Amino acid sequence: MIGPEIERLIQLLAKLPGLGPRSARRAALQLMKRRETLMVPLSEALAHAAEAIRTCPVCGNLDTRSPCTVCADPMRDRSTICVVEDAGDLWALERTRSYRGVYHVLGGVLSALQGVGPDDLTIAALVERAKDPAVTEVILALNATVDGQTTAHVVTDRLAGAEVAVSRLAHGVPVGGELDYLDDGTLTAALKARRPF
Amino acid sequence: MIGPEIERLIQLLAKLPGLGPRSARRAALQLMKRRETLMVPLSEALAHAAEAIRTCPVCGNLDTRSPCTVCADPMRDRSTICVVEDAGDLWALERTRSYRGVYHVLGGVLSALQGVGPDDLTIAALVERAKDPAVTEVILALNATVDGQTTAHVVTDRLAGAEVAVSRLAHGVPVGGELDYLDDGTLTAALKARRPF
Repeated sequence: MIGPEIERLIQLLAKLPGLGPRSARRAALQLMKRRETLMVPLSEALAHAAEAIRTCPVCGNLDTRSPCTVCADPMRDRSTICVVEDAGDLWALERTRSYRGVYHVLGGVLSALQGVGPDDLTIAALVERAKDPAVTEVILALNATVDGQTTAHVVTDRLAGAEVAVSRLAHGVPVGGELDYLDDGTLTAALKARRPF
Repeated sequence: MIGPEIERLIQLLAKLPGLGPRSARRAALQLMKRRETLMVPLSEALAHAAEAIRTCPVCGNLDTRSPCTVCADPMRDRSTICVVEDAGDLWALERTRSYRGVYHVLGGVLSALQGVGPDDLTIAALVERAKDPAVTEVILALNATVDGQTTAHVVTDRLAGAEVAVSRLAHGVPVGGELDYLDDGTLTAALKARRPF
């Protein structure tokens, strides 16, 4: 006994990550209760963002500027390219404020299961960028999953022609993490990569 | 390094129940990746719903019709009024398809902590409706929380003048529930309200 407009709203909300059918219903109810303070502003924010968002032609980042804020920043170090799976990983690295180079968004990882091959990712564009003599290092910041690591190997192979150093993020104990709760693989990696104290 | 339009979108998404700052960021990313299939439709669905939604002048339900679909339905039994906290509870009862009466949405429960008094709820309107000689029963379908039960007592007191039977939902073992996981209060209630088999 709910109007079709509300049913459609619930269906769309349920497609967001983190919301299932039940929580989408609760979210719709909350939106309906707070029509002026939440529903209308959210609708407008979505419309504005949908209009403003561009995919950066240089690195593939999603931003309201083109080229994106990172690529347009003259202070960034263009000799280092950090390769990430998607824009969310780029944002996560930006939040640390500890990286001053530029990025390259692959647009996913290779996956035999989901039929994602090398041509579905922006690997060719990365190789082109890496051939620029000004680029000296490519950092692979891919997820430490099987697909992520497979992708890292393939990207490294393709980069063999370009004269760049290829590195990857360190594996180890998360800062603040307890050894007791760590999986064996991480512990083994942390032990192998031990550093002088 | 994210555009202001996207920051605003993330802030608004984080206000939805079930989404925190981190999952709002993930939801925003998903929306940006699926601009045409998700972001634009969701923006439009929100705008349409915001325009179409009315609070039912009879029962307080939120719907795109006024009076709401339930109140407008000539097949509903107007002798029974089911009192719920908010429209979400009304929808939950409607999904069961086991209630054929009409509803009354209180708009919340009494809460000393949050400063919600009897005048903030639609108790007076309920009493007016209950005075109609055609109404014979008021079912209190309020949450089995302390605030919900306090509210139930206050509503019952106010209804003393109207000649109606006041009932409440049964307490007991949830269908499909295991005794082992039930709290003592529910088990005690289920034991006291035992029925011949």
